[in-house]
Amino acid sequence: MGSFTGRILRIATFGESHGKGLGVVVEGVPAGLALNQEQVQAELDRRRPGASPLTSARQEADQVEILSGVAGGRTLGSPIAMITLNRDARSGDYAKLADRFRPGHADYTYFQKYGIPPQPGGGRASGRETWSRVAAGAVARAILAPLGVELAAYTIQVGAVRAETIDPAFASEHPLRAADPSLAEAMVAEVQDARAAGDSVGGVVELVITGVPAGLGDPVFDKLDARLGGALLSIGGVKGVEVGDGFAVAARRGSANNDQMDADGFASNHCGGILGGISNAEPIMLRLAIKPTPSISQPQSTRDLAGNPVEIEIHGRHDPCLCPRIAPVAEAMAALVLADAWLLQKAQARSES
Amino acid sequence: MGSFTGRILRIATFGESHGKGLGVVVEGVPAGLALNQEQVQAELDRRRPGASPLTSARQEADQVEILSGVAGGRTLGSPIAMITLNRDARSGDYAKLADRFRPGHADYTYFQKYGIPPQPGGGRASGRETWSRVAAGAVARAILAPLGVELAAYTIQVGAVRAETIDPAFASEHPLRAADPSLAEAMVAEVQDARAAGDSVGGVVELVITGVPAGLGDPVFDKLDARLGGALLSIGGVKGVEVGDGFAVAARRGSANNDQMDADGFASNHCGGILGGISNAEPIMLRLAIKPTPSISQPQSTRDLAGNPVEIEIHGRHDPCLCPRIAPVAEAMAALVLADAWLLQKAQARSES
Amino acid sequence: MGSFTGRILRIATFGESHGKGLGVVVEGVPAGLALNQEQVQAELDRRRPGASPLTSARQEADQVEILSGVAGGRTLGSPIAMITLNRDARSGDYAKLADRFRPGHADYTYFQKYGIPPQPGGGRASGRETWSRVAAGAVARAILAPLGVELAAYTIQVGAVRAETIDPAFASEHPLRAADPSLAEAMVAEVQDARAAGDSVGGVVELVITGVPAGLGDPVFDKLDARLGGALLSIGGVKGVEVGDGFAVAARRGSANNDQMDADGFASNHCGGILGGISNAEPIMLRLAIKPTPSISQPQSTRDLAGNPVEIEIHGRHDPCLCPRIAPVAEAMAALVLADAWLLQKAQARSES
Amino acid sequence: MGSFTGRILRIATFGESHGKGLGVVVEGVPAGLALNQEQVQAELDRRRPGASPLTSARQEADQVEILSGVAGGRTLGSPIAMITLNRDARSGDYAKLADRFRPGHADYTYFQKYGIPPQPGGGRASGRETWSRVAAGAVARAILAPLGVELAAYTIQVGAVRAETIDPAFASEHPLRAADPSLAEAMVAEVQDARAAGDSVGGVVELVITGVPAGLGDPVFDKLDARLGGALLSIGGVKGVEVGDGFAVAARRGSANNDQMDADGFASNHCGGILGGISNAEPIMLRLAIKPTPSISQPQSTRDLAGNPVEIEIHGRHDPCLCPRIAPVAEAMAALVLADAWLLQKAQARSES
Repeated sequence: MGSFTGRILRIATFGESHGKGLGVVVEGVPAGLALNQEQVQAELDRRRPGASPLTSARQEADQVEILSGVAGGRTLGSPIAMITLNRDARSGDYAKLADRFRPGHADYTYFQKYGIPPQPGGGRASGRETWSRVAAGAVARAILAPLGVELAAYTIQVGAVRAETIDPAFASEHPLRAADPSLAEAMVAEVQDARAAGDSVGGVVELVITGVPAGLGDPVFDKLDARLGGALLSIGGVKGVEVGDGFAVAARRGSANNDQMDADGFASNHCGGILGGISNAEPIMLRLAIKPTPSISQPQSTRDLAGNPVEIEIHGRHDPCLCPRIAPVAEAMAALVLADAWLLQKAQARSES
Repeated sequence: MGSFTGRILRIATFGESHGKGLGVVVEGVPAGLALNQEQVQAELDRRRPGASPLTSARQEADQVEILSGVAGGRTLGSPIAMITLNRDARSGDYAKLADRFRPGHADYTYFQKYGIPPQPGGGRASGRETWSRVAAGAVARAILAPLGVELAAYTIQVGAVRAETIDPAFASEHPLRAADPSLAEAMVAEVQDARAAGDSVGGVVELVITGVPAGLGDPVFDKLDARLGGALLSIGGVKGVEVGDGFAVAARRGSANNDQMDADGFASNHCGGILGGISNAEPIMLRLAIKPTPSISQPQSTRDLAGNPVEIEIHGRHDPCLCPRIAPVAEAMAALVLADAWLLQKAQARSES
Repeated sequence: MGSFTGRILRIATFGESHGKGLGVVVEGVPAGLALNQEQVQAELDRRRPGASPLTSARQEADQVEILSGVAGGRTLGSPIAMITLNRDARSGDYAKLADRFRPGHADYTYFQKYGIPPQPGGGRASGRETWSRVAAGAVARAILAPLGVELAAYTIQVGAVRAETIDPAFASEHPLRAADPSLAEAMVAEVQDARAAGDSVGGVVELVITGVPAGLGDPVFDKLDARLGGALLSIGGVKGVEVGDGFAVAARRGSANNDQMDADGFASNHCGGILGGISNAEPIMLRLAIKPTPSISQPQSTRDLAGNPVEIEIHGRHDPCLCPRIAPVAEAMAALVLADAWLLQKAQARSES
Repeated sequence: MGSFTGRILRIATFGESHGKGLGVVVEGVPAGLALNQEQVQAELDRRRPGASPLTSARQEADQVEILSGVAGGRTLGSPIAMITLNRDARSGDYAKLADRFRPGHADYTYFQKYGIPPQPGGGRASGRETWSRVAAGAVARAILAPLGVELAAYTIQVGAVRAETIDPAFASEHPLRAADPSLAEAMVAEVQDARAAGDSVGGVVELVITGVPAGLGDPVFDKLDARLGGALLSIGGVKGVEVGDGFAVAARRGSANNDQMDADGFASNHCGGILGGISNAEPIMLRLAIKPTPSISQPQSTRDLAGNPVEIEIHGRHDPCLCPRIAPVAEAMAALVLADAWLLQKAQARSES
């Protein structure tokens, strides 16, 4: 698999949905940074399911235990390992699914690649693996803290409802992370309608990052947008990424799209804070297309392991809309990419010789 | 910088727009593959500018020289180095731009990051660096050839004109790589209108890949879509990536989005050939948002190196629409990612013990 | 730090001597391999201290818990995380050492690099980190098992006593892993004399690996001997590595050193099973110089954190000779390098096209 | 192959002995460093054969051409590509060797691994690939220059003659790089005697590095000695590496081996400037075992490609003793490792938060 990532700030994640637990090792963290279990837990709590009827009913405390790399509230420079044990795995829910591929899930491709039948809860392909990402992201935030970097992800679309105004503070308290206070109820209705129909619904998450200094990102392959985009597309359920104005630029002319400068700085931010793959100190703007949760209770056609056509109905505990779950994961992945780019920039910064 | 990429099939690219030349080293190629200079040149010729009034007038033969790694028409297993020398660099065109940042270009961020003033032709940030990508992509194609993988990228949108039908064969012969024969002239008109106005125009490129076997891609961070998306976003001018139905899934319910299976295989391909980050043997579908070329001759506001507001007009040789130039580069990047994933899969395939 | 290593088979280790625990994540393991906790524990038991009066009195069960990557006695293809919790840490032993640098230890350089004072038990620099290496090595052995690879490390020198015959089976049962039955008691006496004097003693460990097929190793930088040598030198206390005849070749002529071939294969093995950085199917032979344990109870001169000269006496639980502790770690590191090279070779093997 | 190495300062080398040329791409070099072709050429000239009757008669100007990454005598931050073309390849010398494996060479293992017959001049396995290492090393030296790092490698043993005194300045002017002025003639005689007998002779090269600040090196796997040792063992012909006192520590007690500190600093340097894998600011000391050149003109037994026993006599242009050729390569590899460790240390240095 490819469960390791990063160049200076490197992480190694592990864990299956119904295995003993999940975890992550974070390597390359400078020594002397303030970090404690509460900081990490606070981020994990923002990701936790079970907080509302709009999310999965699976109840996991998701309590982090830091096994190494921190002493006396400070990082030691050594790898930081963090784990949590699975408490509320109900593999029984999956027993009758083990012989057939759930549509829209990785069951089929894992079977093709690894030769293993569908694992309870999706095994490694479960959204539970994002626990590791968010825990690591908390460490990345600690690295970025001295720079004043702030990350906020929120839901700007659910089904047919698209936000018209953005209120990140409102979003951070809303169970769907809905960004538009006046349309939040309509978004909730979209989710409830889908759930009532034994169905699910997609959406769009926007991510805005402020406080990033100019100069992060490494052309040509490790451009900041390339790395952010790749990291965000690695989150299950993400089917598209836009940087800045994204697909809207296709219909535009250069004279309207270029961000010109005046005495006050950039006069616009169509590029989303990244020029030539390097941050320009403007807010970084990204948007993610989120597919509707593939687990639905309506009957669907699929195949069993032997290749025979069969029907499947998926009952269990699922989020009817992934947006509020993906938002904190997107923040975490962005924090990891930025912290890595920042450490790399410290290494490669112009020398005075 | 980050000019190296790949895990098994690794590449190292180099070269500035107006420097002595460009090149790439490709490492991790199995020995014994059929490969010759003509194969590589054929791919490079598809990328070459100067082929029509719709592209830059810069005339570069872009002739590849293979310096190592191949003997007698077969790969040796050793690194394959390929170079081309710059012939038609006219740095004089850029002399008067060296003290100010071109809007929409990397001049400003390179100055912030590396402390170097704007380089003639954009230096390392020029589209000329894609020569290296396409040369390396030709090697990747040779690795993929035994699998029957085919890649085709074509233009489905220019400005306000969106293709309604797709004819890849038509596109491959068209100067804009326009995919819809009935709308190709309208696309050309969009480009000509923009150029006549001293302006440029954006678009959308679609990439379809067939013949990829099930099982390529490495969760969780090296998912096939994550790596493809990251690689495509590393191409200059790309501001968004969609996998399969992309942003259209946001408005959809799970029952409509899941790709169900029947006796004949998958009944639909909304996911774009990738499930859980692993190929499912269906065609892989991607779309790229392409920004309008930032180099335009209309006057724009910017700053000089000292921070003072100044005007800028950019004359020289530029593509008024990047789509036809990016299409072969997108194919090359996808070929590199797929060949790397394929070699990795050979290494990690289920053992019989 | 640099606690991650490997290219296809990658590992991430963590843990401090007196922290909560130690562990390792092993990534890139093919699915379907037979692997269980007992196999790993058996390797860990061979590494465990406290087995004789010749080793440290610290009593750690070192019980491994596999948290992920294995189900039903088979690998899943996902990362395998293994941890153990520290039980017998007596940080009190170290309280009075926290303000001064132990000679021969990493205290001084960790303070210079990370700005942290000496950690109890040596922190990350403790030999306890080798738990992670041996656990990972057990997984590597499972990957190599189908090839019939066998690894044996044994002590061929302790202080002034040098083995004259080699009996690996005898060594595997001996508390010092002494290889020469007729000199084993003399080696034990060397250790006991040193300990009685409040001192320690060095030695040499030899490692022989059989069953490695021809073709492993990747010139020019990842030559098999380069990677084995680098991996072995990363073990604390190792101050030199020899491949094949090692330093003895300096005094030799080519006609005596070349391994000629006849109808039966190679007529000699001066090269130690590696030619041009690639295995030639002969036994791989390596030797490691092991320094005397730096922790001794005799008074020594050193400095405190403020830079003042002070005396130090180190009491506590230490191995008077590191050879028997390093032998299984050397095997583990070699197994990791070989398994990685084997997977890489599967990826890069000549294609038939 | 494994022709890429490094973490921040990364290099990619390429080229076969009798191919079109050799080269290297160096990535991760900070912008603004003073660097020009002459600096690189000066290092290459120190490596060049043909300078005396004691080395190969092959005459290569080995002129470097910098293709990218440098402008106006300063690095740009972009990858630095350097090439040289082969001029004096006489493949005819090798025509009659193409069907049989030269003893002590990589012919056999390359055939096993890559399926290619012996290449003229050894192909990729030739010592000519070290051109790329030395060119890259010159860039590494430029990175290290502001620190005041000095590297000196010299020959301390040839055959039976071992140096008793060390005079690096003398060595740098001597054709064998012999370190002991009073024994230099005896070393020359060893080489001449071997050559006269159609034979070759081994030796030992010592490498001393001063000016390295404390704090370089990254435990646990990227310890400075582990990386230096691995890099040095990747040089063809090196069969052993010692750090500090090396194998001499085996016979020693801890009380004699520990480097104690007093008011003036370390009272000894048995450890060779590295403690716990991190530099301690003392001189770094390494020694390399160099095997006798495998190319000898005496008749030897070997096999042909079909596996039949045959005789072989190797005529052509060969160094009868590799020590003077390896010395500058050892310096280059050490410079690369140190520069990479230094950039990594800049990235991971303790943060003040």
